[in-house]
Amino acid sequence: MEKREERAVEEGAAAAAGGGEAEAAAEAEAEVNPWEVSGKIDYDKLIDKFGCQRLDQSLIDRVQRLTSRAPHVFLRRGVFFAHRDFNEILDAYERGDKFYLYTGRGPSSEALHLGHLIPFMFTKYLQDAFKVPLVIQLTDDEKCMWKNISVEESQRLARENAKDIIACGFDVTRTFIFSDFDYVGGAFYKNMVKVAKCVTYNKVVGIFGFTGEDHIGKVSFPPVQAVPSFPSSFPHLFNGKDHLRCLIPCAIDQDPYFRMTRDVAPRLGYHKPALIESSFFPALQGDTGKMSASDPNSAIYVTDSAKDIKDKINRYAFTGGQDTKEKQRLYGANLEVDIPVKYLSFFLEDDDELEHIKTEYGSGRMLTFDVKKRLTEILVEIVERHRRARAAVTDEMVDAFMAVRPLPSMFG
Amino acid sequence: MEKREERAVEEGAAAAAGGGEAEAAAEAEAEVNPWEVSGKIDYDKLIDKFGCQRLDQSLIDRVQRLTSRAPHVFLRRGVFFAHRDFNEILDAYERGDKFYLYTGRGPSSEALHLGHLIPFMFTKYLQDAFKVPLVIQLTDDEKCMWKNISVEESQRLARENAKDIIACGFDVTRTFIFSDFDYVGGAFYKNMVKVAKCVTYNKVVGIFGFTGEDHIGKVSFPPVQAVPSFPSSFPHLFNGKDHLRCLIPCAIDQDPYFRMTRDVAPRLGYHKPALIESSFFPALQGDTGKMSASDPNSAIYVTDSAKDIKDKINRYAFTGGQDTKEKQRLYGANLEVDIPVKYLSFFLEDDDELEHIKTEYGSGRMLTFDVKKRLTEILVEIVERHRRARAAVTDEMVDAFMAVRPLPSMFG
Repeated sequence: MEKREERAVEEGAAAAAGGGEAEAAAEAEAEVNPWEVSGKIDYDKLIDKFGCQRLDQSLIDRVQRLTSRAPHVFLRRGVFFAHRDFNEILDAYERGDKFYLYTGRGPSSEALHLGHLIPFMFTKYLQDAFKVPLVIQLTDDEKCMWKNISVEESQRLARENAKDIIACGFDVTRTFIFSDFDYVGGAFYKNMVKVAKCVTYNKVVGIFGFTGEDHIGKVSFPPVQAVPSFPSSFPHLFNGKDHLRCLIPCAIDQDPYFRMTRDVAPRLGYHKPALIESSFFPALQGDTGKMSASDPNSAIYVTDSAKDIKDKINRYAFTGGQDTKEKQRLYGANLEVDIPVKYLSFFLEDDDELEHIKTEYGSGRMLTFDVKKRLTEILVEIVERHRRARAAVTDEMVDAFMAVRPLPSMFG
Repeated sequence: MEKREERAVEEGAAAAAGGGEAEAAAEAEAEVNPWEVSGKIDYDKLIDKFGCQRLDQSLIDRVQRLTSRAPHVFLRRGVFFAHRDFNEILDAYERGDKFYLYTGRGPSSEALHLGHLIPFMFTKYLQDAFKVPLVIQLTDDEKCMWKNISVEESQRLARENAKDIIACGFDVTRTFIFSDFDYVGGAFYKNMVKVAKCVTYNKVVGIFGFTGEDHIGKVSFPPVQAVPSFPSSFPHLFNGKDHLRCLIPCAIDQDPYFRMTRDVAPRLGYHKPALIESSFFPALQGDTGKMSASDPNSAIYVTDSAKDIKDKINRYAFTGGQDTKEKQRLYGANLEVDIPVKYLSFFLEDDDELEHIKTEYGSGRMLTFDVKKRLTEILVEIVERHRRARAAVTDEMVDAFMAVRPLPSMFG
């Protein structure tokens, strides 16, 4: 897995400076693949282009019914907006069949930002709601190859990131976290070879756009990300359960990996993995355009202090509000481009309050300052909570999550 | 490692039928790479083309001096005829530095023929003479991918082949045999990733001739064969000995893998592996041309009975002798193309007797029948001895050789 959210943030943040012309140009060349997310993304077009399905209200209602709990805010608000065969997972679940969850992260940075946490927050909800096991792949091998960082540094980052992931609250009795450098081998490697046999070089060029000057590590990698979709890659968990279905919550830029995996699966006698896919978390500066990858002011990091968060939101969050109080009272805010409102739609769980803010702010009765203030409160609380949770994660806990071990009550 | 000797046999066996025209055509398109050995091979040209060095008499003398024993018949007779940096291995050895041996086999067939045994017979000699550890790679992953046999069947063949290899007399206290499906992972996988990062797709196309329609398993494989050249791929053997040198005895068709490996090694901080390379064992029908891969009469298998061996030699061994006794007495045999003489030069250890046979047979005083009779005696003895040795190899012995374990007295 690439650090998809980070890229979304990196690539989509200069709209504030850019303006209409830059926006049009960006739209023309919008690009979504596992290594590049740029331009203004039309998610409807993306669904058509990738051939996945929209996650509609009837599916969300069905999740609510089957799990007897309110759907996660990321479902209700369309953050997770697309899927492949999620209905089949629910069919199977309704029949009493279980499934397992698979998600992952490419550990290329020490400090995670809020966008990085989204798939993990959502995966935790799915794990709790469906009471199913979860495998989390840390693709330290991928990062070592793509980012040209050393094996040792990739492994160190994988463990650091594992702490942030564990801090999201996963259940150690149902969760196996593994790094590729640790875990590749045995049944996992056998599945890698089986997948690799089914995919030509031309095919991966078509899917991923590799060139002849790319190193062969890149060409070798897609099977590594593919095979956690197959239960036989985890004999210590799913021995003899080769027909267990797999559901992958991920950002939609990872879809190419799993299109390939789904193409290959039936030829190997496995179920195609199902997917539930999210849009990208926007940069503070707005959700189109391009900015420097090294700008820490484009995102709220889980290591930011309350003051950092307040300053970033006040100084950098692109606003759809008017320049002056007077104009705001007169014209109201453009909610379509307003980053504080977008961030609130991710993290403010109270639907009524969100609606209230949107109405008041959109009509001009509420000022940008007040919306930013409310957002700051919410994000400071989330980040503080995460920081406390992460501080409580010991090395022993990381070892426990990453131990190759059976999970006896994983479906309990 | 491909079943190099087998291919040499498969590809080089129709000269008896072909004649001059076929020979000229074959020569024009002589091809030596890990997956194809065809045409009449000019080994001098191959040395120039590959950029390796001829193994000359002074090196053979040096081996004799350093090991205080007669050089192996395969050295004396030029079967192992080329090398890369073998002199540096001997320099280091002379200074008191040790090295390790690495060889391998692609387990694609159940029954081995004599050609398959040549690298192992020679490797055993090197192990005994230099008292050094040895790693033997069984590339069951490669065979699964290239020959389209199942993972399970590749693994079964690997174990069967391991028995034949063990029957060559390797010392279990100095020998680690591993199959890729068992052993890939950990430090080995980390080295695979490091190698893969250093090699572009265009580079492997140049070296191995892959095309866009080849599956990505083929593109992924060269690092798997490369990394046993690096001591850090075997932490249970060579922990902290990252500067231990590696010597690879192999057939020259494997040279492309190790050209790639040698190119990459310095960038990873490792020594380039040294090589000592053999020519190909000819088919019974002669050493040029082409024949059906499924013809068991092209080679002597270690499973052949004494009667099989006698029949094959009498019926199929291409002879340089004359058609009739009378003509033989008159003109003598053409030793250059005579397969019984070639086979004797591999397996008749007595230099004086071999010279005597060549003189008598070449001059016409000895008949084809008598040369074939002597060859039959020798090969029956070798095959019988191998069969007895193999029958004594138990599953427990295979497990012992393949156990991931330290070898405490491997340099003793």
